[in-house]
Amino acid sequence: MGPNLITLTTDFGHKDPFVGTMKGVIFGINPNAHVIDLCHGIPPQDLTAAALALCSSVPFFPRGSIHVAVVDPGVGTRRKPLLIESEGSFFIGPDNGIFGPVLQGKGMGQVIELSNENYYLKPTSSTFHGRDIFAPAAAYLSLGISPQELGAKVNSFERLDWPQIIKTETLIQGEVLYIDGFGNLITNVRARDLSGLQPETLLISLGSITIHGLAPNYASAREGEYVALIDSWELLEISTFRGNAHLRSGAKKGDKVRIERQKEHGGKPDEN
Amino acid sequence: MGPNLITLTTDFGHKDPFVGTMKGVIFGINPNAHVIDLCHGIPPQDLTAAALALCSSVPFFPRGSIHVAVVDPGVGTRRKPLLIESEGSFFIGPDNGIFGPVLQGKGMGQVIELSNENYYLKPTSSTFHGRDIFAPAAAYLSLGISPQELGAKVNSFERLDWPQIIKTETLIQGEVLYIDGFGNLITNVRARDLSGLQPETLLISLGSITIHGLAPNYASAREGEYVALIDSWELLEISTFRGNAHLRSGAKKGDKVRIERQKEHGGKPDEN
Amino acid sequence: MGPNLITLTTDFGHKDPFVGTMKGVIFGINPNAHVIDLCHGIPPQDLTAAALALCSSVPFFPRGSIHVAVVDPGVGTRRKPLLIESEGSFFIGPDNGIFGPVLQGKGMGQVIELSNENYYLKPTSSTFHGRDIFAPAAAYLSLGISPQELGAKVNSFERLDWPQIIKTETLIQGEVLYIDGFGNLITNVRARDLSGLQPETLLISLGSITIHGLAPNYASAREGEYVALIDSWELLEISTFRGNAHLRSGAKKGDKVRIERQKEHGGKPDEN
Repeated sequence: MGPNLITLTTDFGHKDPFVGTMKGVIFGINPNAHVIDLCHGIPPQDLTAAALALCSSVPFFPRGSIHVAVVDPGVGTRRKPLLIESEGSFFIGPDNGIFGPVLQGKGMGQVIELSNENYYLKPTSSTFHGRDIFAPAAAYLSLGISPQELGAKVNSFERLDWPQIIKTETLIQGEVLYIDGFGNLITNVRARDLSGLQPETLLISLGSITIHGLAPNYASAREGEYVALIDSWELLEISTFRGNAHLRSGAKKGDKVRIERQKEHGGKPDEN
Repeated sequence: MGPNLITLTTDFGHKDPFVGTMKGVIFGINPNAHVIDLCHGIPPQDLTAAALALCSSVPFFPRGSIHVAVVDPGVGTRRKPLLIESEGSFFIGPDNGIFGPVLQGKGMGQVIELSNENYYLKPTSSTFHGRDIFAPAAAYLSLGISPQELGAKVNSFERLDWPQIIKTETLIQGEVLYIDGFGNLITNVRARDLSGLQPETLLISLGSITIHGLAPNYASAREGEYVALIDSWELLEISTFRGNAHLRSGAKKGDKVRIERQKEHGGKPDEN
Repeated sequence: MGPNLITLTTDFGHKDPFVGTMKGVIFGINPNAHVIDLCHGIPPQDLTAAALALCSSVPFFPRGSIHVAVVDPGVGTRRKPLLIESEGSFFIGPDNGIFGPVLQGKGMGQVIELSNENYYLKPTSSTFHGRDIFAPAAAYLSLGISPQELGAKVNSFERLDWPQIIKTETLIQGEVLYIDGFGNLITNVRARDLSGLQPETLLISLGSITIHGLAPNYASAREGEYVALIDSWELLEISTFRGNAHLRSGAKKGDKVRIERQKEHGGKPDEN
């Protein structure tokens, strides 16, 4: 027996039977597999969102889990199907960069191109490798088939990375990386980018939004007001308490956010 | 071993990996837990909808199940994280009233504030207690850790309740409580509020909609017509056969519905 | 013990606790059942989409699985609740035709009307047979209760079928059968309807869209361009690479698609 917890992350959404079909394939190979839906709401072909979903979730899964991620606009082209081992866990999906952030700074084991077609579903389509290559690979791995049996070692793989923040002595500039289902605007500014700064002294701005200070939680704002905080992903997030910051502001992925030290003004913070 | 069926009800939706992350936490603590998604489509911060989802589903789960519900606009404030025992089953979530209706009239066991931080995930965020407090509590409970070990007894908890109907000799007035994914308008008028009345003699009105008599099922109406019936939640519901009553009527949560005894008119019921 | 893999296909969507409730019923009867969500995003009352979801997924599940499908506009009327056995697997749902395509050409076992009310949930609603009749039937079957115990044999059942293509010597005409969550336009033209034709010689047209030749995969087109290909369901599909063909074209279910032999023009294929 191999590890038997398999997670699935895709941009397949919830309208179609694509995810269900992958589960059929997995249980057909290993009836004792334990499959968990990590996330299927990745915006279509959004590699950054896929990488962020993995980054924010994988650390909460037990060592030895098999994480399958299929956000794969290049399906059927020469991009490699991969299996990556890292610190006892496994990552299976297309070689298009989505595993870069979650593996950043992690110990790396073997990297395998899933080239052994004996472990593909037959016939193998050129449009649904989630079903025909990745689901079987995860299922066989969970049965105890070794990674080397599933393909050939390769030396490297694609790694996308977040856009970098700009940091000067007086300013940090980042951008909106992702907008979640509540309409929260999640940025690439990490908690540690703000370390050493006093949360209440910061001035956060994004388009026409200006927020004074970081709040400890959503409910620190009044209903319908913007609030900036470090969220559960350890990222700077702009939110609206009991509202939807995305719909209210019209902000979108890529919009710039600026964090400055607030000028002393002695009085009560301005209202936003 | 404790009970091992854990259900999850949230307003997290299906775009993000929040629910998947909670499952990672649970399986990291108890690999043999059995987790079921009860509902993740609760409209954001809609406590009434959360309460209704629990009311309509919990009675169909076996005794001993652990029901985790996270609709939690006050996350990170002083609202208590709770564990409630009732008739052998368990309810875990924020103390904001959502468990009131499902526990109405039920035998109550202990009520525990989840105050023992040894059972929290560390570091503990102030924005995602579903991951850091509620999921671990459910997982440890399913492992057989006793409720008292997870925190301290409290004497009461918040209970929201439905808006009350108005009942006179000739009229019952209720309101739309929830609109389901089919666009059905579900009201707070219960089957038992109508007991003793002849279904076919009733006149149901909501805005400009007038319906003569309660139907036994959706297909009793012609395609596209409104129909009123007692639904599977034992509530009065206004629906459109093979249509969407919400979109057709523009009715919304809180709109008043009136049920009167129809005047005798001897003839064929009016068409709606 | 009977077979214990139960799949669920419904048009219940993801807003409400309907699917979760069915799982509660199943686990209340058989705590060892293994339930998989095949698809809950079937458009409301769309029998064709339900049939297509089953057709495209069931072949990937192990023999012996129990497939429950509840797309059931006639719930509570005289349409029969059915259990169908075919090649060792089981199909449970309303007798409204949705199982026709998936069973087309398959060996048929017994067909049972689920008429034994001892295996219904009580009280039995007239609006939610998924919960009260179909979920219990699947659960009891998975416990090893025999199909005959659940009801009485019947001799036939409803079978819907796809709209037929028109095929002449120079033209194949089909139509859009389904639009998936990516906006791909999936037609009723099967791979085998095109057998013997050279993929690169075909001219595919739909409304104002004209596409020269079948592509091997989505990425064969340039970003935002239309592409026609045989998809993973072995059907002709019109897609937009990294785009949404449905939104771009405005095409809808039922729109006609034509496939002709392209005239020789010696030069470079036209751009689309």
